[in-house]
Amino acid sequence: MKLTIERSDLLNALSHVQNVVERRNTIPILSNVLLQAAKGELKLTATDLDIEAVDSADAKVSHEGAVTAPAGTLFDVIRKLPAGAEVELETQADNQRLTIRAGRSHFELPTLPASDFQTMSGDDGATAFSVDAKDFARLIDKTRFAISTEETRYYLNGVYLHGAKNDDGDAVLRTVATDGHRLALAEIPAPKGAETLEGVIVPRKAVAEARRLIDATDGDIDIEVSDTKIVVRAGRAVLTSKLIDGSFPDYARVIPKGNDKKLVVDNKSFEAAVDRVSTVSAERSRSVKLSLSEGKLTLAVNHAETGAGTEEIEAEYSSDAMEIGFNAKYLLDIAGQIEADTAEFMFNDPASPALVLDPSDDSARYVLMPLRV
Amino acid sequence: MKLTIERSDLLNALSHVQNVVERRNTIPILSNVLLQAAKGELKLTATDLDIEAVDSADAKVSHEGAVTAPAGTLFDVIRKLPAGAEVELETQADNQRLTIRAGRSHFELPTLPASDFQTMSGDDGATAFSVDAKDFARLIDKTRFAISTEETRYYLNGVYLHGAKNDDGDAVLRTVATDGHRLALAEIPAPKGAETLEGVIVPRKAVAEARRLIDATDGDIDIEVSDTKIVVRAGRAVLTSKLIDGSFPDYARVIPKGNDKKLVVDNKSFEAAVDRVSTVSAERSRSVKLSLSEGKLTLAVNHAETGAGTEEIEAEYSSDAMEIGFNAKYLLDIAGQIEADTAEFMFNDPASPALVLDPSDDSARYVLMPLRV
Repeated sequence: MKLTIERSDLLNALSHVQNVVERRNTIPILSNVLLQAAKGELKLTATDLDIEAVDSADAKVSHEGAVTAPAGTLFDVIRKLPAGAEVELETQADNQRLTIRAGRSHFELPTLPASDFQTMSGDDGATAFSVDAKDFARLIDKTRFAISTEETRYYLNGVYLHGAKNDDGDAVLRTVATDGHRLALAEIPAPKGAETLEGVIVPRKAVAEARRLIDATDGDIDIEVSDTKIVVRAGRAVLTSKLIDGSFPDYARVIPKGNDKKLVVDNKSFEAAVDRVSTVSAERSRSVKLSLSEGKLTLAVNHAETGAGTEEIEAEYSSDAMEIGFNAKYLLDIAGQIEADTAEFMFNDPASPALVLDPSDDSARYVLMPLRV
Repeated sequence: MKLTIERSDLLNALSHVQNVVERRNTIPILSNVLLQAAKGELKLTATDLDIEAVDSADAKVSHEGAVTAPAGTLFDVIRKLPAGAEVELETQADNQRLTIRAGRSHFELPTLPASDFQTMSGDDGATAFSVDAKDFARLIDKTRFAISTEETRYYLNGVYLHGAKNDDGDAVLRTVATDGHRLALAEIPAPKGAETLEGVIVPRKAVAEARRLIDATDGDIDIEVSDTKIVVRAGRAVLTSKLIDGSFPDYARVIPKGNDKKLVVDNKSFEAAVDRVSTVSAERSRSVKLSLSEGKLTLAVNHAETGAGTEEIEAEYSSDAMEIGFNAKYLLDIAGQIEADTAEFMFNDPASPALVLDPSDDSARYVLMPLRV
């Protein structure tokens, strides 16, 4: 293998794939990136055996060939080369070393044979659709914060992606994430082909990598979903991930329908007040008590050892007075998602989940389980 | 105690003292800040028993008094209040709680009696002098990076501050820090009163806190040094620290005098090349080999497992060719201190320490012990 490539092109492609590589690996080749040079192009592949990321860049290839080299070191070396450098990559005759040359810099990295590198393939019979990159980013951003980190509930360790009908009967592409304490739901009008997509659970790491890819993309991305894999294509980059093999809970039953006590608050004031009042709570149980009364919301934390705090903010509220408790962090997470000036809470009673809505975006919904206060 | 104070004034004073408080304390009162209200002023004091920080702010005091409250929580609450807020602080009749009121925010923090708080006093017979804040900041900045972190060599865990004569026989105020592998020295013309200052070792944390104070100061700061304590006054803030009770090594013997092989390199190119070439070295032994020859410096790292790298840069060098090894991190630390476009190295032989000079600043000197390569 021998080629020359612009440093910025190589860095760009490497940055798209190298995050997939786990820092600590017991299997040496999983630390490596697969480099394949052919037909004016260098193709880079990284994998952790669950997720595979591929990207390509234009290159002047003088000898075709393939090899694997340490992803982290290669990325660092290329990153530290001066902007505008032209980089030459060459494998030695015995293929034991990859030589990198740029200006007066010269590096040799250890290699492993390309034939030992395990790649993933897409599945036949997958559901395929195209979707605007920004729309798909929104589906991820509005829900990923609620993904569970409890490994025992592995079926909650991802975003549930599926085709559905909204309340008006329109076909939508929907994402849902929950950790059992809160739930987030987002949807967009279903792209052609996605209307009947069966639900799949996309693991947290694949969600993060897909999001990273999308950031570098304008226009549409192409998605293929089978029973066991999801493939996301953005420009020349391709991300393939195994899906979580489990059943996502019937989330529709969790979303409250009959909540009729409506509270509207200025979102920024609410966020600041929750942040301030939770300062005095002990780390673990960051519980905040919300007291609702006519035109007023009072937030209170009372902790025997660390102190007490109360905050009053103006609110639109005209139902019966009530008190309800929530985890401060979950309130802050949701306030951080709301794009409108105001946040809208729908309550039933102190023991029932609350529904939180964004007045500027009726396609996103949040559910919060109350805490006893 | 009862007073009102501008949020920004209180935040400013708190930020000057609260860093001294250790996050994890077995003695509860050491987590607290002492608040003393009298004569139109709120005085704040924090201590870890080795260092004490005091600052004051104007306040409308309606009842004089003193109390202690948790430094971290108080700082967080005040920080999170909106800019421009007026803050009311009041102790309850039984002095068990400190009430904080601002707008529609209300907090109560647990307190401990002011009489349990231990304060430090300065010593009689101290050497006192005034020095320009920027000059003293320079003395710290040019040397603190070389402070040892090895607790067994406690006498190296600080900056050695003393009056001395430079090579021209002029009185200077000098700082020196070393960890046994490298040494940094900086000096300024001795301020009046500091000419004969006996050497004292100022501990790392006091150096950091003093540096922070100075950042918020224009003009002069006042320093008093006794056998056991240093007091730094900047504006209304006062930092008092115990000194390290030990003997600083005779550093003058370490600074090479007869090194006659002079290497001059572009500092930015040198820094970038060291950073790049050390990418392939294993974390622990970040050794870089410098090969000097006529007009050229070659940097090389060769590691059996992780790979090899070489970098060539242009250099002014006309002595005999030689090879010498250094720790990459130490080279980068020193390159980061050099303010001139070029860095100047003076070598003797591969087993002897090198002297590094900043052509734009002849009052700073660096010594580097070589590694075997």
